[in-house]
Amino acid sequence: MEFFMEDLAPGMVFGSGTYTVDAAQIIAFAKEYDPQPFHIDEDEAKTTFFAGLAASGWHTAAITMKLLVGSLPIAGGVIGGAAEITWPKPTRPGDTLQVTSEVMEVTPSRSKPGRGMAVIRSETRNQHGEVVQVFTSKVLVQARA
Amino acid sequence: MEFFMEDLAPGMVFGSGTYTVDAAQIIAFAKEYDPQPFHIDEDEAKTTFFAGLAASGWHTAAITMKLLVGSLPIAGGVIGGAAEITWPKPTRPGDTLQVTSEVMEVTPSRSKPGRGMAVIRSETRNQHGEVVQVFTSKVLVQARA
Repeated sequence: MEFFMEDLAPGMVFGSGTYTVDAAQIIAFAKEYDPQPFHIDEDEAKTTFFAGLAASGWHTAAITMKLLVGSLPIAGGVIGGAAEITWPKPTRPGDTLQVTSEVMEVTPSRSKPGRGMAVIRSETRNQHGEVVQVFTSKVLVQARA
Repeated sequence: MEFFMEDLAPGMVFGSGTYTVDAAQIIAFAKEYDPQPFHIDEDEAKTTFFAGLAASGWHTAAITMKLLVGSLPIAGGVIGGAAEITWPKPTRPGDTLQVTSEVMEVTPSRSKPGRGMAVIRSETRNQHGEVVQVFTSKVLVQARA
């Protein structure tokens, strides 16, 4: 089933599958996009703010997106134009992440008929139930033809 | 030179190097983290909202981080806990991105002496000067010992 604007309402919740990330993946992502000691070197990371290897927040965000693509069946795809993001805790090697998304608002466009915006709040948790990311985004939604 | 809290002031601007991204990189990133037709299939992408292949916003964000790590010499590293992000235009195959970051605020922590928060606004532009991402983040800063 694909969800159109009319199918979405505040309070609807979508749960994702899971994604497990290991130290090698954390280091590989960070070497490419966020090459800082606490993301790429297990020993050096111990002496930093993170006190151990931590995934780049952008890696957590990318994994969250992967889980959203598999769990938010929005017609036309998950297309976001603006977002707020916080990382209350880092993702650590061996963590298994899961995302729960809640529809907060659904607003038809005033200028573009057949189109609207949904505000969706996605919490990413690790296997201990700790929140590693809160991501609130405005996502494009389409009305049924 | 590393920048400590005392070295940072509103209005300071940091310019990054550049990063060029091609279609193969866009598709590879998206297959791993954002596998939607407009990010992974040049032909199918033509029929979508993006009217052609577009990088995942998370790919633009990751490239921006890579450029920030090379251009924001903050003591202890670039560590963000919260951010707002918008993607006014997508990154396209062949685009060359560059980031300009401006210090907006610097606030010493009330509870943790020797530490503070800087608000930094980073605009990512393509080779045409078009803004593909605006990223405003709260970044950890350390006072000089």
